[in-house]
Amino acid sequence: MMVKLWKKKKNLSKEIEKFTFGKERKLDLLLAPYDIISTMAHSSMLSSIELLKGNEFKVLMQELKKIYLEIVEGNFYISDYVEDVHSQVEIILTHRLGEIGKKIHSGRSRNDQILLDLKLFIRQKIQSVVENVYSLFKTLLTLSDNYKEILMPGYTHDQIAMPSSFGLWFSSYAESLTDDFLLLQAAYRITNKNPLGSAAGFGSSLPLDREFTTHILGFENFNYNVIYAQMVRGKSERVVADALASISYTLAKLSQDICLSTSQNFGFITFPDHITTGSSIMPHKKNIDVLELIRSLCNKINSLPNEIAMIIANLPSGYHRDFQIIKEILLPIFDDLKSCLQIYKYLFEQMIINNNILNYSKYHYLFSVESVNKYVLEGMSFRDAYKKVGCEIQNGNFQTLTREVTTHVVNLCNENIHHFMKSVVNSFHFEKANEAVYRLLTVS
Amino acid sequence: MMVKLWKKKKNLSKEIEKFTFGKERKLDLLLAPYDIISTMAHSSMLSSIELLKGNEFKVLMQELKKIYLEIVEGNFYISDYVEDVHSQVEIILTHRLGEIGKKIHSGRSRNDQILLDLKLFIRQKIQSVVENVYSLFKTLLTLSDNYKEILMPGYTHDQIAMPSSFGLWFSSYAESLTDDFLLLQAAYRITNKNPLGSAAGFGSSLPLDREFTTHILGFENFNYNVIYAQMVRGKSERVVADALASISYTLAKLSQDICLSTSQNFGFITFPDHITTGSSIMPHKKNIDVLELIRSLCNKINSLPNEIAMIIANLPSGYHRDFQIIKEILLPIFDDLKSCLQIYKYLFEQMIINNNILNYSKYHYLFSVESVNKYVLEGMSFRDAYKKVGCEIQNGNFQTLTREVTTHVVNLCNENIHHFMKSVVNSFHFEKANEAVYRLLTVS
Amino acid sequence: MMVKLWKKKKNLSKEIEKFTFGKERKLDLLLAPYDIISTMAHSSMLSSIELLKGNEFKVLMQELKKIYLEIVEGNFYISDYVEDVHSQVEIILTHRLGEIGKKIHSGRSRNDQILLDLKLFIRQKIQSVVENVYSLFKTLLTLSDNYKEILMPGYTHDQIAMPSSFGLWFSSYAESLTDDFLLLQAAYRITNKNPLGSAAGFGSSLPLDREFTTHILGFENFNYNVIYAQMVRGKSERVVADALASISYTLAKLSQDICLSTSQNFGFITFPDHITTGSSIMPHKKNIDVLELIRSLCNKINSLPNEIAMIIANLPSGYHRDFQIIKEILLPIFDDLKSCLQIYKYLFEQMIINNNILNYSKYHYLFSVESVNKYVLEGMSFRDAYKKVGCEIQNGNFQTLTREVTTHVVNLCNENIHHFMKSVVNSFHFEKANEAVYRLLTVS
Amino acid sequence: MMVKLWKKKKNLSKEIEKFTFGKERKLDLLLAPYDIISTMAHSSMLSSIELLKGNEFKVLMQELKKIYLEIVEGNFYISDYVEDVHSQVEIILTHRLGEIGKKIHSGRSRNDQILLDLKLFIRQKIQSVVENVYSLFKTLLTLSDNYKEILMPGYTHDQIAMPSSFGLWFSSYAESLTDDFLLLQAAYRITNKNPLGSAAGFGSSLPLDREFTTHILGFENFNYNVIYAQMVRGKSERVVADALASISYTLAKLSQDICLSTSQNFGFITFPDHITTGSSIMPHKKNIDVLELIRSLCNKINSLPNEIAMIIANLPSGYHRDFQIIKEILLPIFDDLKSCLQIYKYLFEQMIINNNILNYSKYHYLFSVESVNKYVLEGMSFRDAYKKVGCEIQNGNFQTLTREVTTHVVNLCNENIHHFMKSVVNSFHFEKANEAVYRLLTVS
Repeated sequence: MMVKLWKKKKNLSKEIEKFTFGKERKLDLLLAPYDIISTMAHSSMLSSIELLKGNEFKVLMQELKKIYLEIVEGNFYISDYVEDVHSQVEIILTHRLGEIGKKIHSGRSRNDQILLDLKLFIRQKIQSVVENVYSLFKTLLTLSDNYKEILMPGYTHDQIAMPSSFGLWFSSYAESLTDDFLLLQAAYRITNKNPLGSAAGFGSSLPLDREFTTHILGFENFNYNVIYAQMVRGKSERVVADALASISYTLAKLSQDICLSTSQNFGFITFPDHITTGSSIMPHKKNIDVLELIRSLCNKINSLPNEIAMIIANLPSGYHRDFQIIKEILLPIFDDLKSCLQIYKYLFEQMIINNNILNYSKYHYLFSVESVNKYVLEGMSFRDAYKKVGCEIQNGNFQTLTREVTTHVVNLCNENIHHFMKSVVNSFHFEKANEAVYRLLTVS
Repeated sequence: MMVKLWKKKKNLSKEIEKFTFGKERKLDLLLAPYDIISTMAHSSMLSSIELLKGNEFKVLMQELKKIYLEIVEGNFYISDYVEDVHSQVEIILTHRLGEIGKKIHSGRSRNDQILLDLKLFIRQKIQSVVENVYSLFKTLLTLSDNYKEILMPGYTHDQIAMPSSFGLWFSSYAESLTDDFLLLQAAYRITNKNPLGSAAGFGSSLPLDREFTTHILGFENFNYNVIYAQMVRGKSERVVADALASISYTLAKLSQDICLSTSQNFGFITFPDHITTGSSIMPHKKNIDVLELIRSLCNKINSLPNEIAMIIANLPSGYHRDFQIIKEILLPIFDDLKSCLQIYKYLFEQMIINNNILNYSKYHYLFSVESVNKYVLEGMSFRDAYKKVGCEIQNGNFQTLTREVTTHVVNLCNENIHHFMKSVVNSFHFEKANEAVYRLLTVS
Repeated sequence: MMVKLWKKKKNLSKEIEKFTFGKERKLDLLLAPYDIISTMAHSSMLSSIELLKGNEFKVLMQELKKIYLEIVEGNFYISDYVEDVHSQVEIILTHRLGEIGKKIHSGRSRNDQILLDLKLFIRQKIQSVVENVYSLFKTLLTLSDNYKEILMPGYTHDQIAMPSSFGLWFSSYAESLTDDFLLLQAAYRITNKNPLGSAAGFGSSLPLDREFTTHILGFENFNYNVIYAQMVRGKSERVVADALASISYTLAKLSQDICLSTSQNFGFITFPDHITTGSSIMPHKKNIDVLELIRSLCNKINSLPNEIAMIIANLPSGYHRDFQIIKEILLPIFDDLKSCLQIYKYLFEQMIINNNILNYSKYHYLFSVESVNKYVLEGMSFRDAYKKVGCEIQNGNFQTLTREVTTHVVNLCNENIHHFMKSVVNSFHFEKANEAVYRLLTVS
Repeated sequence: MMVKLWKKKKNLSKEIEKFTFGKERKLDLLLAPYDIISTMAHSSMLSSIELLKGNEFKVLMQELKKIYLEIVEGNFYISDYVEDVHSQVEIILTHRLGEIGKKIHSGRSRNDQILLDLKLFIRQKIQSVVENVYSLFKTLLTLSDNYKEILMPGYTHDQIAMPSSFGLWFSSYAESLTDDFLLLQAAYRITNKNPLGSAAGFGSSLPLDREFTTHILGFENFNYNVIYAQMVRGKSERVVADALASISYTLAKLSQDICLSTSQNFGFITFPDHITTGSSIMPHKKNIDVLELIRSLCNKINSLPNEIAMIIANLPSGYHRDFQIIKEILLPIFDDLKSCLQIYKYLFEQMIINNNILNYSKYHYLFSVESVNKYVLEGMSFRDAYKKVGCEIQNGNFQTLTREVTTHVVNLCNENIHHFMKSVVNSFHFEKANEAVYRLLTVS
């Protein structure tokens, strides 16, 4: 029998219960700490508008902190007979504190409560993504600086094109991450608005103070319109997924580049044996499976925004239970992405760069544009210079100018890239959220 | 330290091991019984071409049956130090049987082995999908027959259109499932081809008998070209996902219809209280969350083909580890779909149909085409009859003909639909696969 | 002012007219011939149930044939003031034949009419796809036979793996197309059912003979349930898109293989200068842009099923105007695919295969499994043989056995593949549809 | 015969030419004005580094302005024998100015040129989207203010839930657009960086001044890394598509809400006859097709990011011709979206709001939470109050408090929403781009 706080005469049948709440309880455990924080904020507001008395509030906050600790220590469970984390917390509080527990849901619905929990969770996870990406970014820039004079062929259309360098190549992915952060920041700002007080999506006739909870939770703002506060469910998760997909696209492309570079036909990069896996049939094989797994995990994340879009397509406004499934598919993705980011740092420590790539006849024409430009600097028009070198190549009398390091491929602007990245990271203002949550959890 | 059968001097680093094989072991347990069946088939073939001696083969088959039982009984594990189920089985056999165990991988690669395991798994799961869908199909037809005279309004553009009936409506979803089965059958036929003998994707110089294993495993045929046998990985999973998505689309649409029908503004269908969940804030609320969860789960499945397509896009031919992630996303879907199918049967038992829908003035024009057709049958041209009735409506003197059951909405063709469905189900020929597997597992 | 057959007092505003019918008229021209065929079939049935008199019917059919010819000759237009092709045809007929023209819409709605037109169009286009794909298939098999003894390295994980051949490689894509046809056939069968008589999706009270039109149009069957006949809109287009996507996936993968193969780092395939495009900056560049365009066009088609799925997601049953947009995105795709198929035939005529690929030291270990298998055939267990060769490689004393053509890579089963393909192509039974349409158009 | 500036001995074959450049010329016309602007900027920079002499530069700029005017006046064409707009412009200039024309491609490749043209095009189109969306936003807020006291039922799970108002409902969509703009702004910032100077993706050995062109074109910054400048192709279009999809999602949801609201079963909103289209069979029908078309067009845009993602998935770094197809699918979308935004404004002018919705017994429990809250304000705990009202409802003695306007549903925060919107719109800083382009086009 299910203990529901809003129990009516007839109980939910076992079949429906299992189908409806089965997987959710496990996911809800991820949200439990945020549910406590959100209840602390709501209770503080209820106290400020005198729907909780001063001493009630004090006792309640003590108990909430206790439950928070139980969660952190792994001693919190959602009972089989309880629908979700929100109900579980209210049941515990009512069990331990009696009447006080029955008051905490005043002016609140599970609809705005889960919205808030999710936003607090995602806010935290975005911060973690930023930390891990930024760390990889710095590694890429360091590698770029270290290898800036090592040349490699640049390709267009998979055909040998113009001289490039490991410096340029590493740094290009670093800069890609800066743009990914612009998108992530938009996702963060859309997420970082307080939905509390929207209740079931139509507000409350109680005199709730939405600015109070916005401030106490460190949000940038609140969702002004209570219908919109609900409408943002699904929509904001999709935007977050857009940003994770953009980061994933950068990582998948990097993996694709390295996979090809480690092919014996390119031979630009190798990895030591303890990074490679063998074949069950070919005794000579050394595969870098890990890169292919990163690539495909990232491609999975690449289709996540579409997956969410399909679930929310053509739903009218107002809460629908469909949103629950988005939790299932979005929440575990943060760990997937984190593991990709972290394994990359390890891979870069092990990577072996080939210093001596250009000594093959196939790279003979790599510097053809250098020849064209030389003529241009001597005063010939570009198009004539282009044709002149084209004829030399066609007639077999082209002499390559140089295979030396040329200035423009070592001019990396890495400081500018780092400077821009720092300014983007700083403008997230995570400290505002962090300090607010810290204050709430440590208030006596 | 990792026990790899193809161990070389240096071991795989802990970091790479965890990232690469972490989740796979759990999924591989799902494939374990099929890995035994596949090894039994391969060993039988090796025996037939005398790469296994008669007594070796006999001992091997006994041991494989033992391991199969251990799997069924839950006593099979993949050790932390073993890469995957294929290696685990070879290690056990080598441990228990010595030299014989070392012979089973002759002419085989893990690439064709996992392909085969997956195909056996999917073949079985498609059979299970067919059973569950067929059962729902029969329920829908029964409901259609039972409610064939209960009228309801038909809508186009969400506007009240023409008379319909619960009979027509239930039966329409039954017929939808018959078309879904045509697609599922294509997916089954593409899956139901033997890849064994393609090894790593380039065949084997050993004199393997691919027709032997094709026959003994009850496949319709084998993938003739060994490169194609590998190329079908990812591609066939996507086609299977296409078919599951089509079934899911039918179920999601059905759920959408019922969700709207249960809205008080339509009131065509209700459910008893033990099917509904309440609201934490609104004491009057009775929501049918279960239908929304079915809808969104089905929409998740609807985006599965795209998810797979994104992973395999632009990969050149040849095995890539990327395919592993497809296992993660496809394998659990069968249970998701099954749970939706089964809960639907339960819901239909509980559903309450409103017998008396049309008694509202808003349905006044529902029978306008009946009036047009009456004039047509009396000899007026259709377009003139249409205009005449149109004028009557515009001028407010339209008299509705009847609200009685009209013949055409109760002419359901349910026998034809059932007959067609049976012929499609029969043409899967599951018995061929089932009998082959049974024979292999029970051979003395 | 808009001439609508169902005109009421107030006309549609210019703004709405432009938005609603703007693009549709152009697309409708593609459907015009099929609209005539469908009207011929419907009229024949109306005549058979005596809603058209014998002489009326005869005059009507003559006029319809005349309009058909006007369409074929490019002399048919949809006036700016007419909503769509269906209305245009009725207006012309009423203008030319008076009363008879006003009768043709009896028992029909534009909903089942457009469904029928689309099905006739798609049926024809699938036939054209089959012809073009089958032609490419035969080219691939011919190339496979011609180059069956030319070896190339096989790759797994982008790493050099085992010996392969151009024969195997060409043939693998041929076999891929056979599986694509299984899916296309399911799409064809789902499409090839007559919707006529379902009217607006709820049937008609007139005594329509749906078997009559099914037979006369050469359909395999009819959509029994009239609600389902409408429900299949969008759904069947998506299944068709699934099949086109599967063919496109095969073509995109082929393009990806060739793109890499033409990179100087592989050098397996080259194309003459008149196939390549240059660079505006690099005088040495010869790019095979055409392959990249095929790849991306095919990837666009790869996302088409998802595009359709997004439009129809969560729509309740019954006609919705949303379906119109699916016409816009699906109809032009057939020509895109056709152009890819045809340019491929041209490319294969120009392609130059490198006969002499394996003479590089990087391919030294390509035949390592041949060595393992030699030991196995001599009686050593596979795993020991594998380890022995592994040690030889590690210790630098591995001697490659052969770089000669080995039997298993030239054992192509091309006859079997062709035999299977023929049986699939034949089972489409296009002749049934073709003969029916021919009969209808030529009946006196 | 094709006139290519980089012509070599052999010409491109007709077949390849048609396939490769066929559709592109038409799209390129859209980009022509931006190609002139970009050439003006590049030439100014070449002049500043003395690769163009003072008088050469002056003559060149005059001619470019002339061509710009020819484009604006519709007198510019891309010849059948010319590959693209870039070549056409160089050919014209060389034809008219001789040697000077041959110099303009110094230090540039078509790769960075098309990137720049696209960015200038998209920058302009985003500005246009902002204008049209902002205009709709203001309409929504005005409607919200005008109808703020008109109550309507709020729904969750499609079930009647709590009191809402037209004011709240209109305003929710206005606020949704503010969040969409946060995403669009990220897309704008990612787009608004200068790629010029990256040439083919590996920079140039000429002493190009990238800050010069960045400044003169009014970009926020330049893509520092030249490989990244190319890598952003496809990636930035996808991010732009993400933002357009988010706006489209808002519009599609709005359309879905209105579609349902106009159903006779809700009857919240109606439209006059000149907005509705009829049925060819049902004389009483008045459908609002236009809303369904908006919905589906928007859903098409919703799948656009995925369509782009599929094309660029797993491509290694470096230019690929695949990007061309993205032009085909992205460029026309701006007009699709614009037409949806504009027709909405017209629809809102015609919309008729039902003032008197709540007078039906089905809305009896709409105010149940008001009753609960009344008890709470009197001191009862929320959970007890909830149960008390729940019992009253169950026992049939619930008395609804009020159907009057309640404060919380008319507290709209519309000023705050507008204030926030303005701050977002202003922070695009379109004036910077506009002034720069204006200066360039008007410099003497």
